[in-house]
Amino acid sequence: MGLIIEGEEDLLVPPFNFSMVERGIYRSGFPNSVNFAFLETLNLKSIVYLCPETYPEENSEFLKNHDIKLFQFGIEGTKDPYVNVPKDTITEALKLLLDVRNHPVLIHCKRGKHRTGTLVGCLRKMQNWCLSSVFEEYQRFAGSKARVTDMHFLERFDVSCLRQCLYGIIYRYHASQNRRLVYKEDSLHQKRITSN
Amino acid sequence: MGLIIEGEEDLLVPPFNFSMVERGIYRSGFPNSVNFAFLETLNLKSIVYLCPETYPEENSEFLKNHDIKLFQFGIEGTKDPYVNVPKDTITEALKLLLDVRNHPVLIHCKRGKHRTGTLVGCLRKMQNWCLSSVFEEYQRFAGSKARVTDMHFLERFDVSCLRQCLYGIIYRYHASQNRRLVYKEDSLHQKRITSN
Repeated sequence: MGLIIEGEEDLLVPPFNFSMVERGIYRSGFPNSVNFAFLETLNLKSIVYLCPETYPEENSEFLKNHDIKLFQFGIEGTKDPYVNVPKDTITEALKLLLDVRNHPVLIHCKRGKHRTGTLVGCLRKMQNWCLSSVFEEYQRFAGSKARVTDMHFLERFDVSCLRQCLYGIIYRYHASQNRRLVYKEDSLHQKRITSN
Repeated sequence: MGLIIEGEEDLLVPPFNFSMVERGIYRSGFPNSVNFAFLETLNLKSIVYLCPETYPEENSEFLKNHDIKLFQFGIEGTKDPYVNVPKDTITEALKLLLDVRNHPVLIHCKRGKHRTGTLVGCLRKMQNWCLSSVFEEYQRFAGSKARVTDMHFLERFDVSCLRQCLYGIIYRYHASQNRRLVYKEDSLHQKRITSN
């Protein structure tokens, strides 16, 4: 939405608990038709939806009309401290978030507190935020509903594995770019090959 | 900072109450030397500082070393409900925020709650957010310290005047651009003048 200064007539209603996370990444509670005019200003390319329930008809219609892709990761919204946050599902959702081809993207669950807060917290760990800052942000959105289970999960979530996987992709990407460059230079300056 | 995936060694510590407001606009509480490594990742061009107190030596040094401009608007941090939020000062700070030449910019006061929250709230009104969403965001950062005086100010703050002023600038800008184009075309295609 940038800094577009709107006209006076139509007030915009962001979804509950809406916020910008990073350039191209937004978070919120469940949006409904009241929020659609606001969502239009974000020019979304995709939505990461973290609940198992079927997406409502009118929301699906909105997505279809605006060519927005829906990625659903069905995570149960439970208060039960013995039910673990599903690590693999969070990791998959995180990979999707990190892929700028999906930006701008909106992450949402129901209240934008627990499932969304956990996923954003994992993203912050990827960005090397210290744990107390990750918790501070989580709590700002969860308020009095903050859950110790989510915070335990965030503390234990190991980003080194995913980081290695991403480095692998970047390395392969650069390697192929480099090979192309070397190949190009090859015909022009034969001597350069050894320095690459 | 985008989505740079940091190395594992140095954990980053964002300032208290840090958040992205919009592309190129951040907010937080008072940063100190612990937060400097994190602030570096934002590539700030300027800081909007909302307290009357002199900026600390080590912060000034950090700004100098990173070529970051400091804009200070000394607003008293008072709980007294009979002391009004200074409308003209907020308006001047808002004009500065809206000028993308100052981006990326960090707004901060002491706790990132009242003065910062009020300025961000005025920005949201400029963006045509409905008042209840402006309040929701203000309260998310102020927590139990939310002040009715700030919320009254936000409700009464009239953006139409500033909007007219901005439209004026944009109009003059386009007019001058146009005049320049006409002037250029003038010598090449005399007939075009009438159609401009």
